[in-house]
Amino acid sequence: MQNLGYYNGKIGALDELTVPFNDRVHFFGDGVYEATFTRNHKVFALEEHIDRFYRSAAMVDIKIPHEKAELAALIRDLVAKVDTPEQQVYFQITRGTQPRNHTYPEDMVGNFWVVLKPMPIKDIGMEVKAITREDIRFHQCHIKTLNLLPAVMYSQEAARAGVYETILYRKPDRVTECSHSNVHIINQKGEFQTAPLDNLILPGIARAHLLTACRELGVPVNETPFTVDEMMNAKEVLISSSSAPGLRCVEIDGKPVGKQAPEIVEVLQKWVKDEIFAATEAD
Amino acid sequence: MQNLGYYNGKIGALDELTVPFNDRVHFFGDGVYEATFTRNHKVFALEEHIDRFYRSAAMVDIKIPHEKAELAALIRDLVAKVDTPEQQVYFQITRGTQPRNHTYPEDMVGNFWVVLKPMPIKDIGMEVKAITREDIRFHQCHIKTLNLLPAVMYSQEAARAGVYETILYRKPDRVTECSHSNVHIINQKGEFQTAPLDNLILPGIARAHLLTACRELGVPVNETPFTVDEMMNAKEVLISSSSAPGLRCVEIDGKPVGKQAPEIVEVLQKWVKDEIFAATEAD
Repeated sequence: MQNLGYYNGKIGALDELTVPFNDRVHFFGDGVYEATFTRNHKVFALEEHIDRFYRSAAMVDIKIPHEKAELAALIRDLVAKVDTPEQQVYFQITRGTQPRNHTYPEDMVGNFWVVLKPMPIKDIGMEVKAITREDIRFHQCHIKTLNLLPAVMYSQEAARAGVYETILYRKPDRVTECSHSNVHIINQKGEFQTAPLDNLILPGIARAHLLTACRELGVPVNETPFTVDEMMNAKEVLISSSSAPGLRCVEIDGKPVGKQAPEIVEVLQKWVKDEIFAATEAD
Repeated sequence: MQNLGYYNGKIGALDELTVPFNDRVHFFGDGVYEATFTRNHKVFALEEHIDRFYRSAAMVDIKIPHEKAELAALIRDLVAKVDTPEQQVYFQITRGTQPRNHTYPEDMVGNFWVVLKPMPIKDIGMEVKAITREDIRFHQCHIKTLNLLPAVMYSQEAARAGVYETILYRKPDRVTECSHSNVHIINQKGEFQTAPLDNLILPGIARAHLLTACRELGVPVNETPFTVDEMMNAKEVLISSSSAPGLRCVEIDGKPVGKQAPEIVEVLQKWVKDEIFAATEAD
């Protein structure tokens, strides 16, 4: 198949499959999700994504109708059905099916969805630009929910500005994350500085891998909040997501930023790329 | 029909209709909605709801593929197809259909949905209880979006506590609204006090009608924020939504509240009920 949609056991091409009108996702965005990718039909960091998926679901009281290992096997089986070796792997759980009602039965079991489509591995060496906006999202950004309308609006603003991402800050000036990425700096002390894991950012899996890379490579780590000013004056600004786990950001709001610690960016990017390639070698 | 779902021209029973897998609502909660009700197959305040619907859609850049009058005629036609004279009338627009991607084409046109189901007119005389919780929602609560996961969680907490609603406050103590209603007080001065229309509350249509009632009945109005303490010590607490436009709240977090201005509650409730009954008389 060229792409694949899965819904509770039903499989089809993305533009042919349909879902029940009464799925609660239609009325409340009532679900949580994960996204990763494949190379050589091998899913990168699947177990980590599944662990976070179960944590997100538990935090909003959604019941996943599979055990973790069963879910991993199902996803790997589906990936094998799609022709392209490099795919985006997206999956979500929605709370269940019921005529619209805010409340739900306590024993409701979720609907499991998968989306697979071709996505070439991104060039981690590309340099990107960003804009900044005030972060007006809800205060549970550590849960990877489908309530993503603010992320859509921020992403569209970035696209209209011709840049890669929108970097968000909570008033007055605390940088949190981006519309669909985390953001980090190499600060003036040469530390890899990234917002701490609280309710204002997603615990990014690429973020966790970058922290491991820093520790292995001897780059000092600082998990405390930084301000917009500190970011604008940092040695480097890095933007990470699962599919682009450490892009160098070279311009924010039209002003040049970073590019003062190329040696750190280079070793971090090489570490991340090597890890991905090693984990997704062809058999 | 006993109930009815509508999706872009397709009509069916709610538990039979299906929608395309690629509707953006599935991945982003990417839409806005409205809800009102019928009596004698007459839709109450339809034009007001349609006006707010277009305002919500415009604020998140979603294009509705109908003119307002055409939309009203379509909704009235659908209402006539459902047997029960007293129905919930729910409609929503989702941004469009596209394989999952945060950004969308600038010319994308929305998908229009309607849900009709039996809903007896609520007894406005019933007394209700509530709990309070911190308001952690995003800062655009004036837009009636489908990003309703916090509302689901708050509603479920209310249901578990055996009460009607969850009343929300922004830290430290500013009361905003409820999970799916506005909240108002009769304060110690005898004023009808309600949060001002800013980005923290939905501009409720029942709220607007209650304000009109106050003006016609000579009840002084005060549109400034009130605190949790002021609510707990108010003469009366009222909770309003389109389907229950002015319920007396008599207990919050297990403590008795209000019940000190029955004469005001009585005339407001009578005004609201008379207005609904006059607007929905059988032909």
